[in-house]
Amino acid sequence: MMTEFGLIAAAKQLTATLPTNGFEGIGDDCATLPLGEGEVLCFTADLVVEKIHFLREEMTPEEVASKALHVNLSDVAAMGIRPVATLLSLALPPEAMQSDWAERFMRGYIAASKEAKVTLIGGDTTASKEGITINVTAIGRGPMRHLKRRSEAQAGDLICVTGTLGGSAAGLREILSGTTRSALAELHKHPIAQIEEGVWLGGREEVHAMMDISDGIASDLRHILEASHLGGEVELSRVPQFPGATLEEALTGGEEYKLLFTLSADYWESFSQAYQTRFGTLPYPIGRITSTNEAPHLRWLQKGKEITANWQGFRHY
Amino acid sequence: MMTEFGLIAAAKQLTATLPTNGFEGIGDDCATLPLGEGEVLCFTADLVVEKIHFLREEMTPEEVASKALHVNLSDVAAMGIRPVATLLSLALPPEAMQSDWAERFMRGYIAASKEAKVTLIGGDTTASKEGITINVTAIGRGPMRHLKRRSEAQAGDLICVTGTLGGSAAGLREILSGTTRSALAELHKHPIAQIEEGVWLGGREEVHAMMDISDGIASDLRHILEASHLGGEVELSRVPQFPGATLEEALTGGEEYKLLFTLSADYWESFSQAYQTRFGTLPYPIGRITSTNEAPHLRWLQKGKEITANWQGFRHY
Repeated sequence: MMTEFGLIAAAKQLTATLPTNGFEGIGDDCATLPLGEGEVLCFTADLVVEKIHFLREEMTPEEVASKALHVNLSDVAAMGIRPVATLLSLALPPEAMQSDWAERFMRGYIAASKEAKVTLIGGDTTASKEGITINVTAIGRGPMRHLKRRSEAQAGDLICVTGTLGGSAAGLREILSGTTRSALAELHKHPIAQIEEGVWLGGREEVHAMMDISDGIASDLRHILEASHLGGEVELSRVPQFPGATLEEALTGGEEYKLLFTLSADYWESFSQAYQTRFGTLPYPIGRITSTNEAPHLRWLQKGKEITANWQGFRHY
Repeated sequence: MMTEFGLIAAAKQLTATLPTNGFEGIGDDCATLPLGEGEVLCFTADLVVEKIHFLREEMTPEEVASKALHVNLSDVAAMGIRPVATLLSLALPPEAMQSDWAERFMRGYIAASKEAKVTLIGGDTTASKEGITINVTAIGRGPMRHLKRRSEAQAGDLICVTGTLGGSAAGLREILSGTTRSALAELHKHPIAQIEEGVWLGGREEVHAMMDISDGIASDLRHILEASHLGGEVELSRVPQFPGATLEEALTGGEEYKLLFTLSADYWESFSQAYQTRFGTLPYPIGRITSTNEAPHLRWLQKGKEITANWQGFRHY
């Protein structure tokens, strides 16, 4: 039997046998195409499937549209690059086509695109027998030197996040227990990609590695450590919890779409001042990248002392 | 109630309110991004949905993979541009994940990509509750001056196709009547994008408009006429029928993925010689673009005399 992760691993291995055609491959939030003249394009695609990623009775068509868009824009912004366009593919069962679902979805998608300043360049619409399936492919364009990869963390870097964590997971918990219109539930249903933050961080040379928090930092930070062949430690008392979220939700909650990045510690002062001037808030330093002689390892600290914990990433309902 | 076509029309109208971000929009087989330095990128996306575009008991996973890839590569080649990469999104129900369907699909997709010299740069894999849904986004890259649009036909142009028509529709007819492994059925299940033909035609200045035949020439040729604000006439005795296909299948059969193009009539001799030297066959001239003072209109001729017929495009089963 194949799992989703097994399939992705097999695909990566098989893909290595293909020509690159100038693209740089799978491994970051986006694939990239350096264009010469110092420019780069980024590409990412994500599916949103009914009954896997959303329930039609619990999210409006506009909410589904906005979420399908923003999860993709977040992947582009996490490369330090501005998203500029999407392609939208939509498979709709008869009852969604016959109701106003489809039209509300489209209007919501266009409104969210306008707000994010991305254009819609194409896609596909087709019938399905059952269930709504949406694919969004997002394209970003920016300076090559702004590109942030998971593999660029350096020993001694600060580990930072751009916002409080766990709100989306706490919202999902409330939705699953029947509270679908609380503030936390709204947060879960309305992820907003941190485009301006991502683009700004892309322009800072002291920012080394970056990705978005889609599976929880317990999982996502490990991706940075593995790609950079380094260790890391997180001080739990410094992890910013969204009001109402538990520590575990802050560490393992997915679909946050905040940014996780590493920063040369020497520049913390000037960097954090500039960040505050630009965004009115401070980023949260939650730990440090460490050199390692062993396999990349993430340690959890409680007031500086290592504790044993087995926090893992997020799984969808 | 919204139809698929109504939704696309509404989307186009709404999309016009978005910034372009340097892209040229919906209307051709692909959206395009001129890069400067004389280069252009092309983008297209197509869904392949179980029970709409294929039946799992009648196509192998490798056949579904190859078809999902080639229908997209065909859209890029129809712009005169070489496809270079795809993103693949795959929503799979539990029984497809648990069987070898998923792995055979991936291996088939990679093998077909290798043959077409395109790379795979990303995508998504997720569970679905029911039914397989596949989205492929294809990217092409080539010289801007090779780009062929639907709107560039000129009065007096010859209308040409790159191969015999109706084979795919005849194969679908056989499949629907229970003959799933005949030569025609195989043809329907194995569309091959005419990449080399498309790229070569892109390099010929005497080729004006081009698109691929995905809905049947009765429908597709009308797209060229409308985009070019011109009329057209097709001599039915010149329409090349695939052996075993009816004339109606040749005119209205979809999923052909041959190329339809218009050509300056003055260059027919040198063009057809060069085409034959390159591909060992001749393209088929089937009609002419005419100037028009009325709405763009497609006339059917039988030995030069207009006949009345109401052939329309193709609909999926």
